[in-house]
Amino acid sequence: MTATGFSAVVKFTSHKQQPAVVNGDGANPSHKTSSLVSGPRDGGSVKAPGSERMENPGYCPGSFDGLHHPSDDDDDDEMVDIAGATLDFSSTDDVPPLSTGCYEEYSGSRAAGMNGNSPSKLVDPLEDPVPGVGTYEDFNTIDWVREKSKDRDRHREITNKSRQSTVALLHSVSDAFSGWLLMLLVGLLSGALAGGIDIAAHWLTDMKGGLCLVGFWFNHEHCCWTSNETTFQERDQCPQWQSWAELITGTSEGAFAYIVNYMMYIFWALLFSFLAVTLVRAFAPYACGSGIPEIKTILSGFIIRGYLGKWTLIIKTITLVLAVSSGLSLGKEGPLVHVACCCANILCHLFTKYRKNEAKRREVLSAAAAVGVSVAFGAPIGGVLFSLEEVSYYFPLKTLWRSFFAALVAAFTLRSINPFGNSRLVLFYVEFHAPWHLVELAPFILLGIFGGLWGALFIKANIAWCRIRKSTCLGRYPVIEVLGVAALTALLAYPNSYTRMSGSELISELFNDCSLLDSSQLCGYKQPSNTSETGVGNSLADRPAGEGLYAALWQLALALLFKMVITIFTFGMKVPSGLFIPSMAVGAIAGRLLGVGMEQLAYHNHEWLIFKGWCSPGADCITPGLYAMVGAAACLGGVTRMTVSLVVIMFELTGGLEYIVPLMAATMTSKWVADAFGREGIYEAHIRLNGYPFLEPKEEFDHSSLAVDVMRPRRSDPALAVLTQEGMTVGEVESLVESTHYSGFPVVVSQESQRLVGFVLRRDLLISIDNARKRQEGVVSASMVFFTEHAPSQPPDAPPPLRLRGIMDLSPFTVTDHTPMDITVDIFRKLGLRQCLVTHNGRLLGIITKKDILKHMAQIANRDPDSILFN
Amino acid sequence: MTATGFSAVVKFTSHKQQPAVVNGDGANPSHKTSSLVSGPRDGGSVKAPGSERMENPGYCPGSFDGLHHPSDDDDDDEMVDIAGATLDFSSTDDVPPLSTGCYEEYSGSRAAGMNGNSPSKLVDPLEDPVPGVGTYEDFNTIDWVREKSKDRDRHREITNKSRQSTVALLHSVSDAFSGWLLMLLVGLLSGALAGGIDIAAHWLTDMKGGLCLVGFWFNHEHCCWTSNETTFQERDQCPQWQSWAELITGTSEGAFAYIVNYMMYIFWALLFSFLAVTLVRAFAPYACGSGIPEIKTILSGFIIRGYLGKWTLIIKTITLVLAVSSGLSLGKEGPLVHVACCCANILCHLFTKYRKNEAKRREVLSAAAAVGVSVAFGAPIGGVLFSLEEVSYYFPLKTLWRSFFAALVAAFTLRSINPFGNSRLVLFYVEFHAPWHLVELAPFILLGIFGGLWGALFIKANIAWCRIRKSTCLGRYPVIEVLGVAALTALLAYPNSYTRMSGSELISELFNDCSLLDSSQLCGYKQPSNTSETGVGNSLADRPAGEGLYAALWQLALALLFKMVITIFTFGMKVPSGLFIPSMAVGAIAGRLLGVGMEQLAYHNHEWLIFKGWCSPGADCITPGLYAMVGAAACLGGVTRMTVSLVVIMFELTGGLEYIVPLMAATMTSKWVADAFGREGIYEAHIRLNGYPFLEPKEEFDHSSLAVDVMRPRRSDPALAVLTQEGMTVGEVESLVESTHYSGFPVVVSQESQRLVGFVLRRDLLISIDNARKRQEGVVSASMVFFTEHAPSQPPDAPPPLRLRGIMDLSPFTVTDHTPMDITVDIFRKLGLRQCLVTHNGRLLGIITKKDILKHMAQIANRDPDSILFN
Repeated sequence: MTATGFSAVVKFTSHKQQPAVVNGDGANPSHKTSSLVSGPRDGGSVKAPGSERMENPGYCPGSFDGLHHPSDDDDDDEMVDIAGATLDFSSTDDVPPLSTGCYEEYSGSRAAGMNGNSPSKLVDPLEDPVPGVGTYEDFNTIDWVREKSKDRDRHREITNKSRQSTVALLHSVSDAFSGWLLMLLVGLLSGALAGGIDIAAHWLTDMKGGLCLVGFWFNHEHCCWTSNETTFQERDQCPQWQSWAELITGTSEGAFAYIVNYMMYIFWALLFSFLAVTLVRAFAPYACGSGIPEIKTILSGFIIRGYLGKWTLIIKTITLVLAVSSGLSLGKEGPLVHVACCCANILCHLFTKYRKNEAKRREVLSAAAAVGVSVAFGAPIGGVLFSLEEVSYYFPLKTLWRSFFAALVAAFTLRSINPFGNSRLVLFYVEFHAPWHLVELAPFILLGIFGGLWGALFIKANIAWCRIRKSTCLGRYPVIEVLGVAALTALLAYPNSYTRMSGSELISELFNDCSLLDSSQLCGYKQPSNTSETGVGNSLADRPAGEGLYAALWQLALALLFKMVITIFTFGMKVPSGLFIPSMAVGAIAGRLLGVGMEQLAYHNHEWLIFKGWCSPGADCITPGLYAMVGAAACLGGVTRMTVSLVVIMFELTGGLEYIVPLMAATMTSKWVADAFGREGIYEAHIRLNGYPFLEPKEEFDHSSLAVDVMRPRRSDPALAVLTQEGMTVGEVESLVESTHYSGFPVVVSQESQRLVGFVLRRDLLISIDNARKRQEGVVSASMVFFTEHAPSQPPDAPPPLRLRGIMDLSPFTVTDHTPMDITVDIFRKLGLRQCLVTHNGRLLGIITKKDILKHMAQIANRDPDSILFN
Repeated sequence: MTATGFSAVVKFTSHKQQPAVVNGDGANPSHKTSSLVSGPRDGGSVKAPGSERMENPGYCPGSFDGLHHPSDDDDDDEMVDIAGATLDFSSTDDVPPLSTGCYEEYSGSRAAGMNGNSPSKLVDPLEDPVPGVGTYEDFNTIDWVREKSKDRDRHREITNKSRQSTVALLHSVSDAFSGWLLMLLVGLLSGALAGGIDIAAHWLTDMKGGLCLVGFWFNHEHCCWTSNETTFQERDQCPQWQSWAELITGTSEGAFAYIVNYMMYIFWALLFSFLAVTLVRAFAPYACGSGIPEIKTILSGFIIRGYLGKWTLIIKTITLVLAVSSGLSLGKEGPLVHVACCCANILCHLFTKYRKNEAKRREVLSAAAAVGVSVAFGAPIGGVLFSLEEVSYYFPLKTLWRSFFAALVAAFTLRSINPFGNSRLVLFYVEFHAPWHLVELAPFILLGIFGGLWGALFIKANIAWCRIRKSTCLGRYPVIEVLGVAALTALLAYPNSYTRMSGSELISELFNDCSLLDSSQLCGYKQPSNTSETGVGNSLADRPAGEGLYAALWQLALALLFKMVITIFTFGMKVPSGLFIPSMAVGAIAGRLLGVGMEQLAYHNHEWLIFKGWCSPGADCITPGLYAMVGAAACLGGVTRMTVSLVVIMFELTGGLEYIVPLMAATMTSKWVADAFGREGIYEAHIRLNGYPFLEPKEEFDHSSLAVDVMRPRRSDPALAVLTQEGMTVGEVESLVESTHYSGFPVVVSQESQRLVGFVLRRDLLISIDNARKRQEGVVSASMVFFTEHAPSQPPDAPPPLRLRGIMDLSPFTVTDHTPMDITVDIFRKLGLRQCLVTHNGRLLGIITKKDILKHMAQIANRDPDSILFN
């Protein structure tokens, strides 16, 4: 119940520490105070979803008593409120808002809600726990060590109690299994949502082309199932399904019909994309993009309230369908990870264990990331490895096992929904029949180089474009931008059948091996005249390209160029947009082109040395579909720098260990080539673009600086602001806190000795003093503050002293000034620290925060250290 | 060249810190000083392999100059020497052996070898690096932080140099790719060795039954390939292959022939096991067991010299073949992990980067563990996950990717050797045709419960037996023990065809679905008379059990009992012995029994509610082979507590995601049931049995103690032995070091202030002082020792002072006395610390070592804290 029944209004400034305005909650739950998150995410200003919500942070409803609802829903709402909050970049309001009149009501109602709930063990048990202590503000980093310690305390308490009574024992057992239950629910919900998204996107995509007369809710395939036409080819043109030209003009032939269809295609694309961007802007600004950079940051310990809230989930699910259907060059795979994480976050509220603990919740979110990929590709093992390799920060083995469970549940839920109508678990089912030959490694590595080059280029171009969007007026008109790109995409995509179809259909077709009955253009081979010679069994293999294939190749080449360019402008727009499908499409097209090229080369030059021995005439030696697959892996690898998870996902698509080696060769080459141009993947690049505080766990800190070079205060700065363990008054403490913007203050024995006693967080300090002033008799500005075990002796007429040992962290992390920064960075990464104190010969010297480290790293890399915005 | 060209003689005592006797190396490389490791591994005393080796630690060859060979081979030899060393448990010799006469030569030659090589950056660059500083003693724990820092320094140096010249750039590139090259080599060598082991074991196993007349080097199958008999049944009884009875008595029929075969079977079993145990005892005592507990400990940072050496590799490879062929109830899968790790360790010597850095080497070993499982089962992904989940301690993402690469290389190397003769990658290739039904989850969970119970029981019984072996005189006669168990195994195993065959053959047969042509007893179904009714296609399914099957079931039940009991006594004997195959065999038998039971139940009761709807007459609804597989997973899971990796290995065997859910259900149940009886898997139990210092990363520290409760000195102890940064003489330092047994000493500003400056390791201190006494003019006992930046002012007639700042760790880890132990344990685990200093308000209070933590944990769990033997 940490944040029950009130809405936090947080003013955020990029350079100063942000105090919180906390208002009481009105009698009418819908009549809430508005939520304000001022962050640099968005230049624009978005209205909160509820029209009753106001944007006056000082708003303060009349009566609070009695009608308070401390339910879980409210708790959840609080997160969601902020999702639809006003994002005001320019806000620099820095007045400590704890002194506003609403505070008393807040603390009173909070205290009522908090009492009896497990208090943090770090708070001195002799004191009453102070409400609000140990919680975090928005856009701040959590303290992993403290959170995990809190959870262990909670667990210990339950275990100890379980020995006393049967009820407590049952509680302990249910607590132990709540994690599994949660995973089951996450799997079921995510699987169901993914199924729904698949079905809806399929339906809407088909609607761009025409309508089912039997019922408008049928998609093309579904519509024609009931048709009497039985041949494979004609099933797609059943009379029940009518293109827009047929419906409007009555004919499906001729230039006019084509133009009508073209117009309708563009109309629907614009309509869908307009709906998508408007919904995102109006209800959940966090629903845009792929979500993976933010989820990475959140998993590393950052807090973005509302990013994984109810509104984000609802809006992202709806707009994802719209965005995918609009024909934009984007995929639904990345956003599905975001959707799964939203599900997990919302379901976490059902269990106290996860609701209250930021670290535990992040374990669940890690599993949810696995679930997202599992449902996106039907690859549970690949999903788990993706979460482990790409997304997660803290991934204990317990989470590995649970992720796997959740990923499997989700995959099987999705399969039982059967959105593809083929009982397949995987998105692209492929079965290759011919083995590959060692010689083919050369073209595979070539594809890897292409993938790496394209990945590096894409990242650079996309980031440059995003910077332009951020810095110019373009960023202020996201709707127009989306509509413009959608119009352009639709205009250019329609004439080419390979760009007109959806990305996953395209990839599926490119991956496929040509079977005898295949009618697609890509299989437009000439039947060799001498079938008798090569035998019936091999009539599929070793054929010269026909007219159809040549036409297809030209179209594919154009599609490749188009996809390569348009994706740069699409990724990062204010609609949900994944990058997996577009990059795979680029790679698959390139791969297929190369594959067909190799095949024809072999057909015409069987006598060449490189083909001798394994690719004799009539042999089924080169599989263009495999090349497409390898190319897709290479491009995806170049963009995201995934390695093992990518290969495993691809392996799960084919199901044969046989093809792992080509995939691996291409992925490795692609990663190496791309890394040569810049070590960041697209997600890391976007994290850096947004200035999130993310300590990349993969990259080594490769500089010989020492802790003393990074710590604050610098040599020229004034001395570190410290509290002494006794001898300061409440007024002195308050003025110290107000005159600085630090998030925390070390407590020392005395100013002279500078021997470290503990560390107090600014937020905890302010809340506690305010609480004491309000509730504790006689605490005034002249009261002494002490952090020692026992109260110091005082003159008898002095006001009662204030004991704050309870909120002091008695075990602050310290390093010495001579500690190399690589070790310090390692400590920060592995323990998930927010700050670390620096000592020299036992004396306190300074402090290093995560932000300091990131700024230092930016400086080393010749980047702007001020690009790191958050703590 | 950290350990080039000299043999370290280490005296080890369980309670005191072990100083090192270091002898120079003789002109004749084969004429080395012997190596002595006195550890509690073995009660017996083993002669070193080379007869020239002497056991006199004071041995000191005459001339060192000129003929010194600081080659890599010597370095490798040093490790190997110790593998065949005298293990003398009772040794308590504690004389500081640095004062022996050989030291000067050693340090001189070392210094020559060291100069110019990258010195540790922790050493003050103003001083010459002191040889030996920064290395570790046997049976000690490495300092992960320092090792990783060292590697980063090395890398930084190479990167900086690479900007200066082309040669340096090439060096930098080759350095970057050396990791991949090493992985390739490890994969190739391990794959080749595994193939060799498979072929040899197959051949020797068949030799127990008979001999090939065409050539004795053919195994049974190979021998009959050339035969003219073509039917499947008779191919196994081709005339070229003669059983021993045929060879000796001329007939294969009758009781006498049976007895002759029986006798020969026992004879060969005894011979093989005798050879195995003798070879192990004589040449490589470390080659016994599965090796996984020790590898886990080594990967967590422990040093056991020679455990992964050349001799261990050779002997383990040979004796593994012998042990497997002897018919003992053991497998080769675990030892293959050890073999792969030996390969990796030996190949590490080819690359400076890995030879010199214990942390880097452990990354390679983690990958090698993946390689081991990859070649054992043909499951590369499962192998990587096994390494991640079960074996590794520090597993960065880079290692994940490299492990995967190495595992793939190894798997494909093994396949190209093709030891099973079927071009299959996997050990047990299975293909099931029928899907499973939700109702079947009940028997699968039942198998899970069986697996969990058996796993828990096995661990308890096996550990109890190992304790008996350790504490009674049984431990002194390992050869007799092995011969006894081998004789008993052979005696009981021969009459039952399911125990007579090797473990992997048995499992393979149990996993298999019955096909029409299958002649094995397990497929002895009655053909239903009404074939016309059920149709030809289903003639395989839904048949009543026949005579053959009933006989098979009885034999299987007996085999189950036998395997369950004999494995308890087999695992832990002084021969290489894996546990995967025996536990899988137990589970597979149980599963097959249950599967056939279910099948017959369904056959006779199709009308029952639970079978309705999915198991109608004639339907192929229950697959006994799947039950065997699930049972095998459950038992293996119960014994080892593997989860994800186990399911993935099994998934790779079948290749269908279809069967993951049953496997997962059984594995989960098995783990939960087994965990209820004790949370340790067999490997952790053996680690604890041997007293290795292993901080289990999976288990949470669940106790509310604080750092002050664990640290030394305790309240009643004398104060902590500290050095002051100035003011102590060489003599004082030496007497302090000699009067204590600590592995390191904190350096403080002064005895009064107790403000911490740094930390000095005992070993480094002794080496440096000795080095200075020998090499630095005028350093005597009265010389002042100082750790400060600048020499303190001294009277003019004082002897020159000794500056030791270079060997001091200026960034020791500290926690405060109030730090909860759960956080402290977390820090130790995540950072891989050896020790941590405890402060209170900036003053040094005490020290916590890894051993202290393990002792404290043992105390909490009501175990003997003195069972933790090492630091």
